[in-house]
Amino acid sequence: MNITIIGTGSFGTSLSMILDSNNHHVLMYGRNKSTVQEINKDHTNKNYLKDITLSETIKATDDLKDAIKHGDILILAVPVKAVRTVSKQINDYLNELDKQVLICHVAKGLELGTHKRVSEIIIEEIDEKNYIDVAILSGPSHAEEIALKQPTTVSTASINKTGQKQIQDVFINKYFRVYENNDLIGVEVGGALKNIIALGIGILDGLGFGDNTKSAVITRGLHEIARLGTKMGANPLTFMGLTGVGDLIVTAMSEHSRNFRCGKMLASGQSLDDIVENMGMVVEGVNTTKAAYELAKIHDVDMPITNVLYEYLFESISETDALISLMMRERKSETEGLLEIMRNHLEAEK
Amino acid sequence: MNITIIGTGSFGTSLSMILDSNNHHVLMYGRNKSTVQEINKDHTNKNYLKDITLSETIKATDDLKDAIKHGDILILAVPVKAVRTVSKQINDYLNELDKQVLICHVAKGLELGTHKRVSEIIIEEIDEKNYIDVAILSGPSHAEEIALKQPTTVSTASINKTGQKQIQDVFINKYFRVYENNDLIGVEVGGALKNIIALGIGILDGLGFGDNTKSAVITRGLHEIARLGTKMGANPLTFMGLTGVGDLIVTAMSEHSRNFRCGKMLASGQSLDDIVENMGMVVEGVNTTKAAYELAKIHDVDMPITNVLYEYLFESISETDALISLMMRERKSETEGLLEIMRNHLEAEK
Repeated sequence: MNITIIGTGSFGTSLSMILDSNNHHVLMYGRNKSTVQEINKDHTNKNYLKDITLSETIKATDDLKDAIKHGDILILAVPVKAVRTVSKQINDYLNELDKQVLICHVAKGLELGTHKRVSEIIIEEIDEKNYIDVAILSGPSHAEEIALKQPTTVSTASINKTGQKQIQDVFINKYFRVYENNDLIGVEVGGALKNIIALGIGILDGLGFGDNTKSAVITRGLHEIARLGTKMGANPLTFMGLTGVGDLIVTAMSEHSRNFRCGKMLASGQSLDDIVENMGMVVEGVNTTKAAYELAKIHDVDMPITNVLYEYLFESISETDALISLMMRERKSETEGLLEIMRNHLEAEK
Repeated sequence: MNITIIGTGSFGTSLSMILDSNNHHVLMYGRNKSTVQEINKDHTNKNYLKDITLSETIKATDDLKDAIKHGDILILAVPVKAVRTVSKQINDYLNELDKQVLICHVAKGLELGTHKRVSEIIIEEIDEKNYIDVAILSGPSHAEEIALKQPTTVSTASINKTGQKQIQDVFINKYFRVYENNDLIGVEVGGALKNIIALGIGILDGLGFGDNTKSAVITRGLHEIARLGTKMGANPLTFMGLTGVGDLIVTAMSEHSRNFRCGKMLASGQSLDDIVENMGMVVEGVNTTKAAYELAKIHDVDMPITNVLYEYLFESISETDALISLMMRERKSETEGLLEIMRNHLEAEK
């Protein structure tokens, strides 16, 4: 198939490698002319995937119209904050070309201000006649490891369930296992909210805390994600799967994770502005902390880790105060609330 | 209170430090005279906790009768395979002293041959009149980090629910947070079965696999634990808490974990016998893999990771075959089975 990847970052590039090795015709679109040239001439993308050589059959362009013309499937691999603008541009070209495509995004975050999930942004900006379905591909999948063909498992979900089947078909191979999940909301929300916990774990790590402490916060973080996610319409069980606990582990326990690294740098005393500027990649967890903090108020959900992180990031409470809030909070039982969530979900399902 | 710790290993020693700093009178019992002497004279236990100095108020003895005489609470911190023998000895002295105690164990495994949980072994060997209750203390808690007063969270559960309250009371402090959990079976089974997954993750790590692969296996491992645990009578939600996902993360992602290290050494080509001999500590995951493998057959539960590990450890299938079995197995959906487990549990609860 002809598939277009919108975005030349690390994850988009690693996905282009999978699709290419599955014999699809891959065209990458990027705004940065020198990256596009590097992919076409040198078959590398050193800013994002240092030691990787790309297949010569992977092409890139900086002309969005050409990119849209090429693809029957468009993979949106851009940061959350770019999704609305890029979707508008895509919609204009789809109208001009009178073309209908399958859209799949891989962004993990919520939109600032609107608190929208990425698929919600896309269907607001792209006319219904222009897309077959809108899907997401998400799960515990560092781009660096995908590029090395490390066995990886991910989930796909879509609005009307046809797109997810097709996304599974084009991506699945021996080392990249794709599972269908019928809970689009849960898959999107899990991927987004785990970045908050990963930021927090990065801070703890940077402050010298060990695995006991990190494990406690990850466990509570999972419950916190499930509490908000369920209010947003997700199936609580999704948070026990690849895009929940799986992605949380890989993000919160790995130096590959930008959100983890950002937290670590914060703990070392660097300012958030400096970190974001120097990282050269978007740290989705920062905006998502803000969005989730506001959402939790709207839905009246208890989110202690998100609240502490919000105060630490945006209201400058001290590390000590943050830690005390995180660890010393009294609770009646460790699975408090989770049983209720499960029960309500199963009741509602009947 | 007067509290006796049976066992002078790393975990028992770290627990003695907590209890001592909570102003309890702690006596440790160990068979090894030189360790006992070291604790009493040098206030160290360098074989197990290298750089730690113990409080002078922590005493040790190699006389089990004196140890039993001392304690109103007995903390059993011995390997699973020693529990039955030690329990018999304790029972004899309790009879002789006409004494009733609260017993709490901290072992994470299942008994070979009988497949029994540790609290089941204890109540088989100790007369009912001799104990007030039998409790467990378990959760994501490396001894090395407890000894450094790193914030740690654990769960406690007991047979008749009075013991767990008392265990919480004597252990809880600013850095060691203890939560009551009413699901004794789940707390015991979670702690035992996670060692199997940790062994498997160690092997993957040793073979050079990355976080994507490890995260996939941890996620599936959690579901596998929940499937068997629920058949054994546990509440499936317990596996989403500290003694489930929490302990799994800390064990499977940390060099502190013996089970993880054992797996890594296996992958480097060392024999299981050599590893167990050189480790100087018990690797509970090995026997527990065997016990869980047999239990899964009895309960007719699908446990692909446990099965592969069993074949790898005891039937010498190749690493490649093991990996293929682990990763390439087709499944209908990623949360397959988990919804059924939750539904059955909630139905049964009504």
